[in-house]
Amino acid sequence: MRYDGRVVKKGTLLPARDLYHEAVKRALVKEQWTITHDPLLFSYGEVNFQVDLALERLLAAQRGHEKIAIEIKSFLRSSAITDFYGALGQYLCYRLALKLSEPERRLYLAVPLNSYEKFFQTKFAEAVIAEFSISLIVYNINDEVIHLWQ
Amino acid sequence: MRYDGRVVKKGTLLPARDLYHEAVKRALVKEQWTITHDPLLFSYGEVNFQVDLALERLLAAQRGHEKIAIEIKSFLRSSAITDFYGALGQYLCYRLALKLSEPERRLYLAVPLNSYEKFFQTKFAEAVIAEFSISLIVYNINDEVIHLWQ
Repeated sequence: MRYDGRVVKKGTLLPARDLYHEAVKRALVKEQWTITHDPLLFSYGEVNFQVDLALERLLAAQRGHEKIAIEIKSFLRSSAITDFYGALGQYLCYRLALKLSEPERRLYLAVPLNSYEKFFQTKFAEAVIAEFSISLIVYNINDEVIHLWQ
Repeated sequence: MRYDGRVVKKGTLLPARDLYHEAVKRALVKEQWTITHDPLLFSYGEVNFQVDLALERLLAAQRGHEKIAIEIKSFLRSSAITDFYGALGQYLCYRLALKLSEPERRLYLAVPLNSYEKFFQTKFAEAVIAEFSISLIVYNINDEVIHLWQ
């Protein structure tokens, strides 16, 4: 098994963050996405960024390729709202920077199903997501499937 | 000296975060602002928020009172960009929630002068601040004055 350019021995325990990353990758491959960058590097002026994944998928009727980028969040901290502030700020900064280098690539924030059910469906989180037009992917860590594209 | 409802003995060491908070308060009082809430509590649906300070100042020519709220950031972490993501997300969430309860109160993000000079004047940070119309207060922790309102 190769992982991020390093050979990881079978049975090695991955940090929780990486487990989530791998689960999202497998869920997207099931939906016919091809991973093109892991991670995708880009920059804006003197600031460098790396978003977790870049993927593409052939569109029907020869309309070319659909390109997306995904920042994967595990929301493992005890404070959902603190994680949310950080994820929102990061997503908006990445989207602004990415618009300059690859305007056709849509950026998604991937969040686990339990966080989505507990926090993202509150009236407040829904208002923020609508206000800033955030594209969400909700993934299920247990069965490694994409639960929702929003 | 009273501090946040607790009596703090002269000579007691305050955590760095509180030192910044106190310095910003003194700098604003020098500019004729009156502190009305420390902190200001508000809510949106089931989510409760508290922004560091609420202040008001009499406007010239009997035009009433100008009301503001300030979230004070010390940017003490080693990663300016991680602090920036969190501060941006928190500011945008607070502003959205505050618009519902007190639409006339303008929200500012207070940042220390050294962070402003090192990070906030990069091309990228300037683009983010313009994109999201962020109101900034730049404070000098050493002489306890407001360096800039932006």
